Amino acid sequence: MAAKDAPKVSELDGEAPESTDFANYFCTYAYIYHQKDMLEDHKRTGAYYQAVLSNKRQFQGKVVLDVGTGSGILAIFAAKAGAKKVYAVEATNMAKHARSLVESNKLGHIVEVIQGTIESISLPEKVDIIISEWMGYFLLRESMLDSVLVARDRFLAPGGALYPSHAAIYMAPIRSNLANQRTGEFQGSMEGWAEFLHEMQHYYQVNLDCLSESYRSEQRDYYLHTSQWTDTHPQQMLGPAAPFIKYDLHKLTIEELKAPLKAEFLLHMTDGGPVDALCGFFDVWFRGSGENPVDNEIRLSTGPDPTGATHWGQQTFPLHPPIDCAPGDRLRVSVEVTRRADNQRLLQVKAGITIEGSSIYAEQSKTPRTFRWNIE
Amino acid sequence: MAAKDAPKVSELDGEAPESTDFANYFCTYAYIYHQKDMLEDHKRTGAYYQAVLSNKRQFQGKVVLDVGTGSGILAIFAAKAGAKKVYAVEATNMAKHARSLVESNKLGHIVEVIQGTIESISLPEKVDIIISEWMGYFLLRESMLDSVLVARDRFLAPGGALYPSHAAIYMAPIRSNLANQRTGEFQGSMEGWAEFLHEMQHYYQVNLDCLSESYRSEQRDYYLHTSQWTDTHPQQMLGPAAPFIKYDLHKLTIEELKAPLKAEFLLHMTDGGPVDALCGFFDVWFRGSGENPVDNEIRLSTGPDPTGATHWGQQTFPLHPPIDCAPGDRLRVSVEVTRRADNQRLLQVKAGITIEGSSIYAEQSKTPRTFRWNIE
Repeated sequence: MAAKDAPKVSELDGEAPESTDFANYFCTYAYIYHQKDMLEDHKRTGAYYQAVLSNKRQFQGKVVLDVGTGSGILAIFAAKAGAKKVYAVEATNMAKHARSLVESNKLGHIVEVIQGTIESISLPEKVDIIISEWMGYFLLRESMLDSVLVARDRFLAPGGALYPSHAAIYMAPIRSNLANQRTGEFQGSMEGWAEFLHEMQHYYQVNLDCLSESYRSEQRDYYLHTSQWTDTHPQQMLGPAAPFIKYDLHKLTIEELKAPLKAEFLLHMTDGGPVDALCGFFDVWFRGSGENPVDNEIRLSTGPDPTGATHWGQQTFPLHPPIDCAPGDRLRVSVEVTRRADNQRLLQVKAGITIEGSSIYAEQSKTPRTFRWNIE
Repeated sequence: MAAKDAPKVSELDGEAPESTDFANYFCTYAYIYHQKDMLEDHKRTGAYYQAVLSNKRQFQGKVVLDVGTGSGILAIFAAKAGAKKVYAVEATNMAKHARSLVESNKLGHIVEVIQGTIESISLPEKVDIIISEWMGYFLLRESMLDSVLVARDRFLAPGGALYPSHAAIYMAPIRSNLANQRTGEFQGSMEGWAEFLHEMQHYYQVNLDCLSESYRSEQRDYYLHTSQWTDTHPQQMLGPAAPFIKYDLHKLTIEELKAPLKAEFLLHMTDGGPVDALCGFFDVWFRGSGENPVDNEIRLSTGPDPTGATHWGQQTFPLHPPIDCAPGDRLRVSVEVTRRADNQRLLQVKAGITIEGSSIYAEQSKTPRTFRWNIE
């Protein structure tokens, strides 16, 4: 045996025990090279920098909590903006590096690094501001927002502000070679399987055909029902992106967040099809709270950008076969995003799509075509 | 945040709890594509096939246990060789595929698939033969031999046989571009870090230099102190491979196996240096037991082969900087292989190397040069 590939998904049922989650989730963030990857995403780091440093009035003399501080950078921004105290919470051993970074930037009298999970630590006081960079692919992957909401409910003083304060998830219809490419790879894989069956029979007189359907299903899931990180160019878009969920993070409850996300929306086709894929991404906004609004609102967008993607890229969902439609048609999409039963930090997306409009495609589109994808 | 790369090593101290081990280790083996990778390694599967089917006399009417049956292939071989009963134990959900494969090959009356770990299951009788394909990279990675020895001590009847019965690990001195390449990549990474520091200072007025030493150490570990899977050509060898440990699996105790493996051996240099790397690999032998020896001894070798490597390849350990030596010199290598404190299924290898002989290099080699590598 040789376990070559690190598995993405466990075969365990239900929620992973804490130790498994720790091993599988947190430890990526314990490497400096990974912190560097995030820090040098200047659209990301720059947005937080602007959100804090161009709103110094909001941080002046305040108590701040940074959830998942990593290298400590956001805590440092908050301290530089005038916070009187910053609690910087980090579960992994990156906490020691954060501490050293805080010290060497002479902010040890303001920033206190606490190693632990937000669910297990305690703080001596309520905080005025919670800042956190918790967003995963397609906003919700990693489910770290759960911990930010726990922090809000445990530690945020009445009227306090979340940074970011709002979020939205979008989908756009795009042209992409992804569906074609994946379909080709899937077919190649099944041709390889046929050859493999022949070899096993010929060399060892064992008939493995009874596994063919399971293999096909496993490979189909991998190639056709898995979304992919892409750096999508705006010119690939066949119509504008539609936001299908908007969160006010001050109001969102943990129960709402954990429930399946269901939404229905229209994609207006500027260009005709075929639509090869849906391109999913998110924005977050820094607006402060109603009681303590920002002076300068900052938006961090992860959509298609001719200058290149953030480190989140976009999640592209292949449509196989592609959807034919005409300019002026609308795709009516009902989408459902759920956490995976086998790993609560990963997601499953389902969509039903019908075509509306005056084209022949719309006329023929009676029942929704359905799709499903895993976000790995 | 976006956790792009699946982590290889956890930051947890000590032995992983069972649930973590299950999530991290076993589930790779729950995919058919991974079973296919192993099955279509015909040096591997063919060696087991020959070991069983060319020794039918040894299997006739016997009770057999297959530890970690995976697809069930070895259990099926044993049944085809005339075993009267085969217990096929598999921890992952691959067990259901094994069951289906057994049924569809009409061996359900002989092979019983049991889903569970060898440590937790019970059997109604002792067995005459234990067969298992437990070998990891460099033989010992994955530590699955532990479970085979547990099976032996719990279930093997006196005089019973292990398939395979013997194993050895080798090292050979090779020429390779690996050390050079890795050194270049490491230097490139540190140049990138310098640029990154400059950006962080310039854009955000944060000085990250206090992390430089930790980053250097992290990157050095990754590039220079990590062995690599290679398909080494025999012509890269600068002298014959030396076996530095031989195991009689009937006699090896679990305590011996878990203890650090320490050995000293000589590598005879047919060609001169520079020696860029040590190439590590293993062989196993199927000899049966003293009481029930095979008729046809089979050897499965994973060493450098002009026709290509098995799926194990070789583990290549870069020597940085390379070791200069002359034809006729000998490298005296003292090696220590230990399990990693952070993950008992991974390994750390240390080596001390001196040059012996009549060359100028040997004369100048007073104290051993020391090296260390992780096997990921």
